[in-house]
Amino acid sequence: MIILVDQDGPLADFEEEWLNRWREKYPDEFYIDHVDREDFYIHDQYPKHLRAQVDAVYHAPGFYRNLPVVKGCQEAMFEMLDMGIDVRICTAPLPAYQNCVLEKYEWIEEHLGMEFVLRTIIAPDKTLVRGDILLDDKPTVKGSMKPTWEHVLYTSPYNRRITDQKRLTWDNWKEVLLPMLKK
Amino acid sequence: MIILVDQDGPLADFEEEWLNRWREKYPDEFYIDHVDREDFYIHDQYPKHLRAQVDAVYHAPGFYRNLPVVKGCQEAMFEMLDMGIDVRICTAPLPAYQNCVLEKYEWIEEHLGMEFVLRTIIAPDKTLVRGDILLDDKPTVKGSMKPTWEHVLYTSPYNRRITDQKRLTWDNWKEVLLPMLKK
Repeated sequence: MIILVDQDGPLADFEEEWLNRWREKYPDEFYIDHVDREDFYIHDQYPKHLRAQVDAVYHAPGFYRNLPVVKGCQEAMFEMLDMGIDVRICTAPLPAYQNCVLEKYEWIEEHLGMEFVLRTIIAPDKTLVRGDILLDDKPTVKGSMKPTWEHVLYTSPYNRRITDQKRLTWDNWKEVLLPMLKK
Repeated sequence: MIILVDQDGPLADFEEEWLNRWREKYPDEFYIDHVDREDFYIHDQYPKHLRAQVDAVYHAPGFYRNLPVVKGCQEAMFEMLDMGIDVRICTAPLPAYQNCVLEKYEWIEEHLGMEFVLRTIIAPDKTLVRGDILLDDKPTVKGSMKPTWEHVLYTSPYNRRITDQKRLTWDNWKEVLLPMLKK
C-alpha cells in the first residue's frame, strides 16, 4: 500500500505563511481570510492589480523554508510508516524552482527527518507517480495519464465544494484511511 | 509512450567533470581513466583512504551545475518530443541534496530549457515512476516495486559487463528505440 502525501497543504501550511507575510508587508491592503478562500491558487482570488505582489510573496527566498507544520502531520506520517504503509511525499515544484525546490527538502529534513527526504518525489505531473492513494488539498489533480491512485482531499476551505471525493484532516485520518487499507 | 531519461550519465557527464576536478585538485594522486571504470559508484573503485576526498569532489557547490553536456543528447531529446514521445527526465538526488537538487534544475534549464524543467521528476526510487522505458547508465536499477518500464542501458564503461539488456548511446538511439516504439 503506497500513500502519496502532497507537501503544501497537508504537511506545510502555505496558506498561513502566505497570509501572515501579506498582512505584514501590506497591512492596509485587501486580503482574504482563510475561511473565505475559494480558489486553490491564492493568485486567482486576488484582484488583478495585486497579483504580481501576491506571487512575489511566495517566490521570496525563505518562504517555503519557513512554512509552519500542519498540526498532527508528523505523528500521522510516522504512524502510517509504523503500520507498514509505504508513505511518500509527492510534491509539484513551482516553475520558478529557484527557492522552492531546495527549501522543500530542507523543510522536510527539519520537520520529518532524512527518512522522509529519501521518500520525497518531486513531480510536476503526479499522474506519473504510482500509488494507491494521493492525499492532496488541490480540488482536482490532473495530468497526462489516468492515475493509479485515488485522490483523497486534505480538507481546506478552497476545496469544500468538492462533494464526490473522500476527504480527511489529521484529526480524522484513521477513520477515512484505515477502511481503505482493508480492501 | 513514455521514456524516462536519467540525468547523470545520459545527459550530464558526471564522470568527465569528476575526473577533471580530481586530477586538477590531486595531480599526483591515484586515478582511474574513463575506459577503466568498472564500478558504477566512483567511490567504490577508489582505495578506502581516498574515499572521503572522492565524495567531496561531487558534493562541492558548482559540481552538478557545471557538468558537461553529453554530445547529441539535446538533439535526441527534442527529436523524441517531436516524434510524439512523452520524454521525462527522471533523476535520483544525492542524499546530501544541498547542492545537487537545485543545480540539477539549473543545469536542465540552461541546456534543455524550461520545457524539460517541467518534465523533470526527482525520485530516489525510480520504480515508483511510470514509464515504458527507463534510459539509465546504472547497471541495475532497483526499488520497492516491479517497474512498469524496461531498463535500457545508456552505454558506459562501468556497465559494459551487462549483456542481457538493450543498450544505446546518442549515436545509435534510433536503431534501438524505434523498433521498441512500434510494438
